[in-house]
Amino acid sequence: MRQFKLDPRLAADTVTVGTLGLCRLLLMNDRRWPWLILVPQRSDVTEVHDLTPLDQTMLTFETCLVAKSLKSFCGADKINVGALGNMVAMLHIHVIARRTGDPNWPGPVWGFGRGEPYDDPSLEKMRNDLAQAILSV
Amino acid sequence: MRQFKLDPRLAADTVTVGTLGLCRLLLMNDRRWPWLILVPQRSDVTEVHDLTPLDQTMLTFETCLVAKSLKSFCGADKINVGALGNMVAMLHIHVIARRTGDPNWPGPVWGFGRGEPYDDPSLEKMRNDLAQAILSV
Repeated sequence: MRQFKLDPRLAADTVTVGTLGLCRLLLMNDRRWPWLILVPQRSDVTEVHDLTPLDQTMLTFETCLVAKSLKSFCGADKINVGALGNMVAMLHIHVIARRTGDPNWPGPVWGFGRGEPYDDPSLEKMRNDLAQAILSV
Repeated sequence: MRQFKLDPRLAADTVTVGTLGLCRLLLMNDRRWPWLILVPQRSDVTEVHDLTPLDQTMLTFETCLVAKSLKSFCGADKINVGALGNMVAMLHIHVIARRTGDPNWPGPVWGFGRGEPYDDPSLEKMRNDLAQAILSV
């Protein structure tokens, strides 16, 4: 098995929040929505169904942990979870906190407008707060 | 626990392909993409993380079964999986076969244009072919 190396586009668009049992947890640098991404640390996998059954179960549990924590942290109305991979082949799972009236509500976040990066202190604070909320449970 | 009853909007937009262990399996009546929807037969659940751990695992396995079969059946380039629920609260998981160059590729299918229903014989054939491909494995 090749060593896992994060896709360069995912690396460019995010900062790392931490590492779970299977996944690298990333924060999307787009302040329009609280938006996390889980990347299973497995090389050459593009579909959830190509993971082993154990990894599929791990991914489900880690996704649910992140979704539940993010929803509670943000007081969100709804969590959107998606594995698309039409642009970046490396398997990655989006977990996004949505609110009634947020940009493009009730449409999807993908493909909508342009990303709006956080300023550096806000990005750092968001990363730290999320690490505290998710990784300390 | 209340008896499970399919959301009327999901019922109006789809036809039933069959029933898996946990989920009702639906075919979206939109011929732009081969598009299936899994609905866990649990009342009053809107988020994957609100299912029990066993149901989460069942849902993962059923989603992967459907995704793998659909990709193979369609010769798709990519499967898109998503649980959004911004419009229909009842928990439901989209599994969509995508191809390079399909309508809105590489963007998402959600919120794009208007649905294009199959004609009746094509819908019936698609439903039967998918039932054969997915439920007979």
